[in-house]
Amino acid sequence: MALIVQKFGGTSVGSIEKIQNAANRVIEEAERGNQVVVVVSAMGKTTDELVSMAKEISAAPSKREMDMLLSTGEQVTISYLTMALLAKGYDAVSYTGWQAGISTEAVHSNARISDIETARVKAALEAGKIVVVAGFQGVDADGEITTLGRGGSDTTAVALASALHADRCDIYTDVTGVYTTDPRYIKGARKLLSVSYDEMLELANLGAGVLHPRAVEFAKNYQIQLEVRSSMEQEKGTIIEEEASMEQNLIVRGIAFEDRITRVTIFGLSGNIGTLSTIFTTLAKNRINVDIIIQSMTDTDSINLTFSIKSNDVEEALNVLEKNKNNLPFDRVETESGLSKVSIVGSGMVSNPGVAAEMFECMAQNGIVIKMVSTSEIKVSTVVDQKDMVKAVEALHEAFRLDEPAQVKA
Amino acid sequence: MALIVQKFGGTSVGSIEKIQNAANRVIEEAERGNQVVVVVSAMGKTTDELVSMAKEISAAPSKREMDMLLSTGEQVTISYLTMALLAKGYDAVSYTGWQAGISTEAVHSNARISDIETARVKAALEAGKIVVVAGFQGVDADGEITTLGRGGSDTTAVALASALHADRCDIYTDVTGVYTTDPRYIKGARKLLSVSYDEMLELANLGAGVLHPRAVEFAKNYQIQLEVRSSMEQEKGTIIEEEASMEQNLIVRGIAFEDRITRVTIFGLSGNIGTLSTIFTTLAKNRINVDIIIQSMTDTDSINLTFSIKSNDVEEALNVLEKNKNNLPFDRVETESGLSKVSIVGSGMVSNPGVAAEMFECMAQNGIVIKMVSTSEIKVSTVVDQKDMVKAVEALHEAFRLDEPAQVKA
Repeated sequence: MALIVQKFGGTSVGSIEKIQNAANRVIEEAERGNQVVVVVSAMGKTTDELVSMAKEISAAPSKREMDMLLSTGEQVTISYLTMALLAKGYDAVSYTGWQAGISTEAVHSNARISDIETARVKAALEAGKIVVVAGFQGVDADGEITTLGRGGSDTTAVALASALHADRCDIYTDVTGVYTTDPRYIKGARKLLSVSYDEMLELANLGAGVLHPRAVEFAKNYQIQLEVRSSMEQEKGTIIEEEASMEQNLIVRGIAFEDRITRVTIFGLSGNIGTLSTIFTTLAKNRINVDIIIQSMTDTDSINLTFSIKSNDVEEALNVLEKNKNNLPFDRVETESGLSKVSIVGSGMVSNPGVAAEMFECMAQNGIVIKMVSTSEIKVSTVVDQKDMVKAVEALHEAFRLDEPAQVKA
Repeated sequence: MALIVQKFGGTSVGSIEKIQNAANRVIEEAERGNQVVVVVSAMGKTTDELVSMAKEISAAPSKREMDMLLSTGEQVTISYLTMALLAKGYDAVSYTGWQAGISTEAVHSNARISDIETARVKAALEAGKIVVVAGFQGVDADGEITTLGRGGSDTTAVALASALHADRCDIYTDVTGVYTTDPRYIKGARKLLSVSYDEMLELANLGAGVLHPRAVEFAKNYQIQLEVRSSMEQEKGTIIEEEASMEQNLIVRGIAFEDRITRVTIFGLSGNIGTLSTIFTTLAKNRINVDIIIQSMTDTDSINLTFSIKSNDVEEALNVLEKNKNNLPFDRVETESGLSKVSIVGSGMVSNPGVAAEMFECMAQNGIVIKMVSTSEIKVSTVVDQKDMVKAVEALHEAFRLDEPAQVKA
């Protein structure tokens, strides 16, 4: 008898019909003789509706009260799913975050799980019940309801799997797995049988929302094997584990891409030791996420600094820089919008030094100008014109043979 | 500085606008320098919507899971109301039932409050906060979420007022107070300045939903003075206390009435000592509420038994009797539907023996046939034809001078 944790996201429990369908998935696992713990999110648009009402009441609602409010969403889902399981003749019980023993730090809207006291869940499992737990929520040491922020239900599932020493953690979602690249754009995209945690982190923006990076990190830290699979279709998904299976051992595992990128270049910064730190701390404080950073010395003592941000952060970024011009003197700022980022990802790169060169060559052959480059041990990212994005992905997908049948056809 | 408990029912928090309005009511009390604890119900139709979804999933949803589900309704309201108070610049904090220390017996859907641990609420009040508590819900000794059944939020408010030794408990609702009779039917109906707990219990079906009998009983047991008042209009409501004020000391305080009553007569029951008990225990087990009961001996040893029930229980009652015919042998059952009950209520009756006679005389003068009679120390009930109901109430309202200005004009 194995212990399986299953997680169903908001779109997988978005209607009565989908809840019935999720219940059937739970029952399949129970019928195999396994103990099952199910973690669910709020139904479909529930959270959005609650947030929009709150915004009508207060322009900036208290984070504590938002947690109080939003945590009702999962509580509704756990009761409906449990009713569905009971109606189908299976013994089941629902628990809120605090009932499931999920303790968090004392932070609202973005708390981290600090501990899980599993006695109550274990007792219910031992009594033969399917246990349905509200994702995304916990309770702090003062008995305050907290929420885990974006991707919170994924994190709940992985943390419960770890605390319960579960044999597997299955993430049911509205896609059938993790792909070599986004199948909505690239016809040849293939489902991966497995990826490593690190690759998954780098591929996170493929099929946005498949699995939150925090949950992947958590799974990596506690070595929980995950499987991402469809709640609607009966097919194998993608396994996420420490080392992707041998059969999959391609150097490049997937191609991630993202549009609406803007390049920002600051000319004539002073070469002081603290300049970079001041700029990026200032931007971070204003919640502007900087991605690729390139620094070059000029012939004088001043620095030219280039970085990429999301295009809809440009206005705010320029405001912030202008406001702080006195603290970090510079000559001028130049921006270029209409760019995209294209990255190749694969843990095999570490031991294959020629991969970046192969990527650049492929792009050159296809007439694609590379505007910025950044590399990590398992990823090479390039910034290109937005009009070249899909062409670049297609060319790279073929060049690294990601469309060949070692993967499963999309 | 006084401590005031305020309760807002579902219709008083049924929209953003109404929540803002309730917040203003809370602030008025806080501005008087008082500590305020607010108890709220679920917003308007929320509970009905949750129940109807549950019924789609399961014909007979688990009571535990229904409590899990329905308790989210008040949790949504407390967060919205608290956000509204914070947005208006008042410090406030919301608590679910379990956070407010409300312990109940281990029963789902209809639990009774067993204890309130007030430390957390008191600490928040002492820190200068307005405390907003979810009505209708609590937690049992095993950490299971329970609900208090119909009128639960009224009960929460009264129980909190008692546990906190509050100076007052104000019940805000969609009517302006308790009336001598139902103003929707009788033009001369007047608002009462005060009624006693017992009178309120007997008048409970006037303006249905004004205040649940359980909450009145609780207030009587713990001597909590209540005031029923409108959440929308600025006028004094009706005070409910042990002894109604002297100025109000009319013999008859109000006239209650109810339509859709059916008379059931069982002929030829055996005169055994256990017969009555068997019949009414059997009906009660089948959740059929019997109201007035009349028993008469015939010239033989058999008994004819007459009682009144709600008309929509008739079919079920006849089924139950027929099914149990062997245990409680009888000849036949006769029913008469299309009846109504009209009652006069007033604690002054105890010391005024002629009141029932005065009632019968008034009805006779108006040509109204009385089909059944039942009396208690503070109430005389009659059953009449439904077509005579309003005429009887009007005649009695005038005969007992309830339309005179000792009360407040409707």
